Amino acid sequence: MLRIAVDAMGGDAGAPAVVEGVARLSCRADNIHTLLVGHRDVLHSLLGQYRHDPSRIDVVHAPDFLPMGADPHEVLERRPGASIRVATDLVAAGEAEALVSAGPTGGTVLAATARIGRLPGIRRAALAAVYPTEKTHGPRGDPFALILDVGATLGATADDLVGFAVMGSAYARIISGNPSPKVALLSNGAEANKGTPAIVAAHARLREHPFIDFSGNIEGIDIVRGTADVVVCDGFLGNVVLKMLEGVAEVLSGLMREAFDERLLWRVGLSLVGHDIRQIKAMTDWKQYGGAPLLGLERVVIKAHGRSNPRAFANAVRVAARAVEGGLTEQIRLGLIESARTEPQLRPS
Amino acid sequence: MLRIAVDAMGGDAGAPAVVEGVARLSCRADNIHTLLVGHRDVLHSLLGQYRHDPSRIDVVHAPDFLPMGADPHEVLERRPGASIRVATDLVAAGEAEALVSAGPTGGTVLAATARIGRLPGIRRAALAAVYPTEKTHGPRGDPFALILDVGATLGATADDLVGFAVMGSAYARIISGNPSPKVALLSNGAEANKGTPAIVAAHARLREHPFIDFSGNIEGIDIVRGTADVVVCDGFLGNVVLKMLEGVAEVLSGLMREAFDERLLWRVGLSLVGHDIRQIKAMTDWKQYGGAPLLGLERVVIKAHGRSNPRAFANAVRVAARAVEGGLTEQIRLGLIESARTEPQLRPS
Repeated sequence: MLRIAVDAMGGDAGAPAVVEGVARLSCRADNIHTLLVGHRDVLHSLLGQYRHDPSRIDVVHAPDFLPMGADPHEVLERRPGASIRVATDLVAAGEAEALVSAGPTGGTVLAATARIGRLPGIRRAALAAVYPTEKTHGPRGDPFALILDVGATLGATADDLVGFAVMGSAYARIISGNPSPKVALLSNGAEANKGTPAIVAAHARLREHPFIDFSGNIEGIDIVRGTADVVVCDGFLGNVVLKMLEGVAEVLSGLMREAFDERLLWRVGLSLVGHDIRQIKAMTDWKQYGGAPLLGLERVVIKAHGRSNPRAFANAVRVAARAVEGGLTEQIRLGLIESARTEPQLRPS
Repeated sequence: MLRIAVDAMGGDAGAPAVVEGVARLSCRADNIHTLLVGHRDVLHSLLGQYRHDPSRIDVVHAPDFLPMGADPHEVLERRPGASIRVATDLVAAGEAEALVSAGPTGGTVLAATARIGRLPGIRRAALAAVYPTEKTHGPRGDPFALILDVGATLGATADDLVGFAVMGSAYARIISGNPSPKVALLSNGAEANKGTPAIVAAHARLREHPFIDFSGNIEGIDIVRGTADVVVCDGFLGNVVLKMLEGVAEVLSGLMREAFDERLLWRVGLSLVGHDIRQIKAMTDWKQYGGAPLLGLERVVIKAHGRSNPRAFANAVRVAARAVEGGLTEQIRLGLIESARTEPQLRPS
């Protein structure tokens, strides 16, 4: 039985979507036991509304929660009873093997880093995101590629970038079932000497890394094509890229909606080419489909999107369970040891 | 009469597209005199094939040209007879007021910077690009926004970013006829403290700049929406952003083409909603529509896309003429003086 701590408070859709997702999951996934963290009165009342298997859910009381928009540092300094603190402490104490949070990103990152701790060799945890691409990925035909860091951490060093590559590769192996994900550095040219000094140095080290199928630098155009399974970049760049992809999805959805609403004949046409439209729709709605892993910590942490619906939330818990089962943390730890070993040989003398 | 030097050699489509564009333009634009630079035999032979007004075109002989893929430094060191060298020298000597080049970007930038020279206060010239957005820009409803630098120059300082803002704003005023273009810094959050130290410092200075309608930081999502008329960023980031937009255009074209080729009913539907499709097509074909200005030099320089068709090439020459008429260089010079003046007041004491 895998024990997953879930911070049920603080998402944009509030506790109801989280509880409904966990309730549904409890009726289906017999290998997952959820520790649902939040105010006990709220959670018990919500659980009463949804069919669930009570033997697979425990409610853990947290008297407080970090609201959206609050200073994330409050979670460490002034809110010991906040649900995200209680949930991370359950994981830190070994009472749960993974954390899933729909609360604010800043608070989740701070609490998880401070209470669960970073893996040796990791200076900063990285937030990864999946996004839809034209090509599929791995033997199962996963329509999503992974990009990290998107955590808005500025100024990644070569060490950080190599760490991101190790972590993203391990995650894609386990979650996408892709035995050898192609990892690429995002730069302004394919040549090994293109990019910032950190990118150039990371390129040289990744080329020699025994754990990583490194396909070199890619450019902006390749992000959309989906040439790589795992795209590695600085958190600043990742943030801009991810938000651009959201903007493209927004504009496409708008165009499709307009076409649907206003023009009968196009509507008829569209219904006949349902497959293509579903593909575009999947591309524009992808944020529903999963959580963003926070990588580089001693335990599995998944940040679910604040506006997730119940199904997406249940999916984020499943992903956390799969990451634990697949040994994500151990895979990353081994990859990082390998990174540290290869470094000195490659340093110019 | 505006005299525009045109490097006719070295584009991907070769001299024919350039000469055809210039020939067509000569029959229509009575205020433009083109100095067509390249091998005289090639150019005279091509001119013989197209209707043109010989009183508005001079052929200037250049025995050599810089081929695509050659080391751009050759243009300065070993190829004094290269067409781009001869064309820039005409501009430097005052025999032409602007340069239009369809040759390799690197060679154009090097030759123009070395022979024409930078404006006072400009450390490096910036390459700007237009791209299509959801919203239109300015009173004429221009469908394109401007982004700079996209020249793959790494490590922009706050000074560089302020200079890009001044140059982009002046270009948008003159070319889009937008009297007060909204200028924004691309960052990982809207708040003034978001981004790299260079972005944060540039933000503080732009807020006080009397020549610039500064609307603060924008995020990736706003690039696609078209919130700003001029987007300012480091050349590395601009390169990734522009190539992502090209990737999106490529994927959209692919989807549209597939729909057109394979499915009759959708085809019928599409022909009835021609307007929307033309809009998508314009968005995916936008690279045809103009040139990319190289800003920050003592004269107007437009880099036309290497794969431009004759119409796009004629358009690039028109844009160069409009920039000269509008006093682009003088506008930038005045804006830069203002930047230098505001700086000391804003420096923390």
